[in-house]
Amino acid sequence: MLGLLVATDPAWTELATRNLPALLIDHAHCEMKAASNAMSLVARYGGLHELLSTQVVLRLSDVAQEEIEHFRLVVREIERRGEVLGPPPVDDYASDLRKGARRLAWTERSHERVLGLADRLLVGALIEARSAERFKLLASALEGDALQAFYAELFASEARHYRTFIDLANDVVGDEAVVRERLVALYEVEAGVVRDLVGRGLRPAIHG
Amino acid sequence: MLGLLVATDPAWTELATRNLPALLIDHAHCEMKAASNAMSLVARYGGLHELLSTQVVLRLSDVAQEEIEHFRLVVREIERRGEVLGPPPVDDYASDLRKGARRLAWTERSHERVLGLADRLLVGALIEARSAERFKLLASALEGDALQAFYAELFASEARHYRTFIDLANDVVGDEAVVRERLVALYEVEAGVVRDLVGRGLRPAIHG
Repeated sequence: MLGLLVATDPAWTELATRNLPALLIDHAHCEMKAASNAMSLVARYGGLHELLSTQVVLRLSDVAQEEIEHFRLVVREIERRGEVLGPPPVDDYASDLRKGARRLAWTERSHERVLGLADRLLVGALIEARSAERFKLLASALEGDALQAFYAELFASEARHYRTFIDLANDVVGDEAVVRERLVALYEVEAGVVRDLVGRGLRPAIHG
Repeated sequence: MLGLLVATDPAWTELATRNLPALLIDHAHCEMKAASNAMSLVARYGGLHELLSTQVVLRLSDVAQEEIEHFRLVVREIERRGEVLGPPPVDDYASDLRKGARRLAWTERSHERVLGLADRLLVGALIEARSAERFKLLASALEGDALQAFYAELFASEARHYRTFIDLANDVVGDEAVVRERLVALYEVEAGVVRDLVGRGLRPAIHG
């Protein structure tokens, strides 16, 4: 699925669908974080024309708007069930992934700023890929439930965002072979993070 | 205009309309900061049900989406003129306003968290009010220009956001008299910040 090296354990799907309120609360926070991340990329790099063209800025802000829209859909679903958003559950997946990427030396020599931005985009792509994989599992497991169509649609959207982030990394670095090599290494990091999280016990969370 | 105590100097309008590229770049960054601020309120307080109800969370995320939409419109206008976004110009207005609010003791006794959130909402309301005032000045000065309708529309939108932030502060504090008293004091702070910025020299920036 979208190049991921480790498939999610079916026990996760079972746990998640048995704990939908907890899953939805975690999911709402994930969408919020994804929107904030896209916006912080625009704010941090948007003024540096040599790094982010107007087109890249527009595509990132488009991703941010879609993630806020997802957040709103999930919050309404939480409300419909008589639940409340609640504080964000523990979520080490994204930060472990970022830490792993930082520990991984680039073989390519380029401006530190270009490589830093490329890594943020590629880590973003991997988070979208893993989310898409899990949304697809949820859509399959929730057959007959009102949430099935919801997760099937979110799967398609996050798979598109995965592609967008890879395209943006290619634009920024300007060399697809370099990006591909980096992505191969980051897929290994992602697999390690997932194995590690499973080792600490499955949780009813999007990246749990 | 929306309760502001100091009207903008007509010299600002002249300077701003004579330097539209610089103004637009500053404006784009302002919209992005406004969107980030709304989302950061959701992220920081959204999990505390006693402070932010689902409805408040939805309204704040709605504001964030509208601000991103404005950002995209301004970026496209910058692109249409063959300019680039560029780094954010100096913008002390919002941070000076926040600092001023922090220095201003509340007469009301309540949870620090409630008062902190209320201040962030009320400072947000004042920023929207000042932006609305300046967008209206721009719309009037740009008669005949393609940007006239653009700024007239943004004026209406920011004036709505002003109202939204006041409503949300009332929801959070639960006592309109307390909010009104605080707002009166914050209007004084805002007037002081604007006078101070004018003293440092007018700039072709939304809050310059």
